[in-house]
Amino acid sequence: MGQTIIEKIISNHTDHKVKEGEIALVNVDGTMATDTTAPLAIQAFKKMGGEKVWDPSRVSLVIDHASPAPNQLIANLHTIMREFANEQNIKLYDVGQGICHQLMVENKHVRPGDLFLGADSHTCTYGAVGAFSTGVGSTDLAGVWLTGKTWVKVPSTIQIRLNGTFNPGVSAKDLVLYLVGKLGIEGATYEAIEYTGDAIYDLSLSSRMTLANMSIEMGAKAGLVDTKGLSLKEDFQHIEPDKDVNYSNVLEIDVAEIEKQISIPHSPDKVKAISEVNEVAIQQAFIGSCTNGRLEDLHAAAKVLKGKKVHDNVRFIIAPASKKVLDQAVEDGTFQILTKAGANFITSGCGPCVGTHLGVPGKGETVISSSNRNFPGRMGNRESSIYLSSPDVVAASALRGKITIPSYSKGVKN
Amino acid sequence: MGQTIIEKIISNHTDHKVKEGEIALVNVDGTMATDTTAPLAIQAFKKMGGEKVWDPSRVSLVIDHASPAPNQLIANLHTIMREFANEQNIKLYDVGQGICHQLMVENKHVRPGDLFLGADSHTCTYGAVGAFSTGVGSTDLAGVWLTGKTWVKVPSTIQIRLNGTFNPGVSAKDLVLYLVGKLGIEGATYEAIEYTGDAIYDLSLSSRMTLANMSIEMGAKAGLVDTKGLSLKEDFQHIEPDKDVNYSNVLEIDVAEIEKQISIPHSPDKVKAISEVNEVAIQQAFIGSCTNGRLEDLHAAAKVLKGKKVHDNVRFIIAPASKKVLDQAVEDGTFQILTKAGANFITSGCGPCVGTHLGVPGKGETVISSSNRNFPGRMGNRESSIYLSSPDVVAASALRGKITIPSYSKGVKN
Repeated sequence: MGQTIIEKIISNHTDHKVKEGEIALVNVDGTMATDTTAPLAIQAFKKMGGEKVWDPSRVSLVIDHASPAPNQLIANLHTIMREFANEQNIKLYDVGQGICHQLMVENKHVRPGDLFLGADSHTCTYGAVGAFSTGVGSTDLAGVWLTGKTWVKVPSTIQIRLNGTFNPGVSAKDLVLYLVGKLGIEGATYEAIEYTGDAIYDLSLSSRMTLANMSIEMGAKAGLVDTKGLSLKEDFQHIEPDKDVNYSNVLEIDVAEIEKQISIPHSPDKVKAISEVNEVAIQQAFIGSCTNGRLEDLHAAAKVLKGKKVHDNVRFIIAPASKKVLDQAVEDGTFQILTKAGANFITSGCGPCVGTHLGVPGKGETVISSSNRNFPGRMGNRESSIYLSSPDVVAASALRGKITIPSYSKGVKN
Repeated sequence: MGQTIIEKIISNHTDHKVKEGEIALVNVDGTMATDTTAPLAIQAFKKMGGEKVWDPSRVSLVIDHASPAPNQLIANLHTIMREFANEQNIKLYDVGQGICHQLMVENKHVRPGDLFLGADSHTCTYGAVGAFSTGVGSTDLAGVWLTGKTWVKVPSTIQIRLNGTFNPGVSAKDLVLYLVGKLGIEGATYEAIEYTGDAIYDLSLSSRMTLANMSIEMGAKAGLVDTKGLSLKEDFQHIEPDKDVNYSNVLEIDVAEIEKQISIPHSPDKVKAISEVNEVAIQQAFIGSCTNGRLEDLHAAAKVLKGKKVHDNVRFIIAPASKKVLDQAVEDGTFQILTKAGANFITSGCGPCVGTHLGVPGKGETVISSSNRNFPGRMGNRESSIYLSSPDVVAASALRGKITIPSYSKGVKN
């Protein structure tokens, strides 16, 4: 029996050819922790007797979850991270540099075929560049810092074959919401997902990141996007699955069947066609997060909002995925279009998505967001409701004060 | 005996010619409350049996102190403000519109000769346009909302005559820090200050706001800047004090004697020449606040930082005083110069200055700030130290990682 992509990557990081279900001791290419997880990892590392991390070039820290510091407790945790980074000579991305996952890809800390561990659940995002990357706990990460190794249970794989042509206005976010709706939040628990098929070869790196990113919303350990068509401005080795692979499930999907999607409260897998919730009033609109805060997402919003003003009843908050994204948006005029329309740019980071600060909704309010989760309290207030959709839908909804499909997507089946 | 400016303004708002020391019942031209004070004022207004505010056109609310909302409690307070604004048909400046004092002046809610009350201590800022404006408690403000009137004890006046020519690089912030150092934080308690003299006629509106703003740091109830030379793009009536006025104190200052100033921890009146603290290492630099977050302040910083990068050890945070300031800074390229240099723009508001969120320093850290207060804990952490100076000094210090006088001011006596 042949190997899946994930089995090949894991095999490349151990001393034998692994098979699904076995527990393998692997060499780790890179690690990452944020201000939510790094302070605990640092504490655990020291308790384990750690003095120097195994390879400083393979460790990154990112201050993004509560950045700039919203209070003294968190400010002091940031200080612990800075001291550790100095002491260990490791890369720290400080306030405003960006969201961890964006930075890991943008700055090439992770490469195709890598095995990468991050102390954050959306670490699966790097499947976009064909890496096996997954989230681990702080203590597990500390162990990797000490030894450069960890154990993984080799996951089974679901292959999702995406064929056909996307309808105009239908994005990677619509695709992944559709899949989350189809498989459910436990549909791929501890499995890997391989996304392949001719429908995805033309997807940008940003769109591939959106797709891989929400694999965790199906419970998946990893979501690997076929590297065919991936442009990284440099050579890399494509890893293909063997022909005779025993997938746990194979889904064939014609993407032409996919309409503009929305996830309704209070679970990412409660996915509907937007027309079904078209008249829901919103008070806050958010574009950002590791899912949809990149330049192409801001472009999608600007296309809807150019020359217009968001509704009086709506607070419109944008968190660019990185400082680079912000700089590019200012350079090409996207920032100006969006601020003129009434958007408030906040410091690049995770804040509103995870409810740590920078846009906690009020009691009874409804939010439309380009992010990834809408569980009760996700944005910091259990008495608010969150709808998840693509950035163009967020923009169109901000404009009208109600959940709205952008006019250029009106032809799309709903 | 003649009247001071403040006595004339108060007289114009009551039925007789008032004198220092008396308690007068006055008509109020305008009021303002923020997310720190408005929720309490709303509660008090309702407890007083208030149904409709006396004049909706004279009431403004501003969400600026913790904006966007950093947590559920504050998000719900914001909701209370929005509901009240809707119900009363009063102007609410929501998330990202700006700092209350900037908005009141920018949008002409306050005019020369007005009597204006704000539920924030820096309401004295509007002395920059020749208004008598002062901070009141939430309950007092609620009383004004009900009746349009309040009582004031007519304050005595200190006249500060500023003559001569400023040294190059010496700004209104240096001037006011110098005065705070000279008079002390209780030097003008419950008094009004009249700033006059040929040195101030050329000051911009922004600089006049900086000067009036920190009058409260001397304990003053109001700080009126002579409206001679004030440009408001419209006509207004200059109010001059009578010739035979009995000032409680008259200070004559030749501004040529004033050097670049800095206030050292932990009180605004611990003012020194910068050369005395030239080697103090800093970890955070902040430009913003109602004192120094305007376009001319960003210009001063950009002049220092153009084509340069801030020090690796420094987090550099900028909060523009309003969305208008941000838009102008993007339009004229100042924003781009500053972000390229490593600045992180945060949502327009008060956050870091008052320690509510968006830049709380860590334990043991030292901050240089363009804001107005450096009491222990002011920025949210009692175990940090704050130095106050002008925006160019903040920028130069961010560049070097140590408190630094900008090179173009090197000729200035220190």
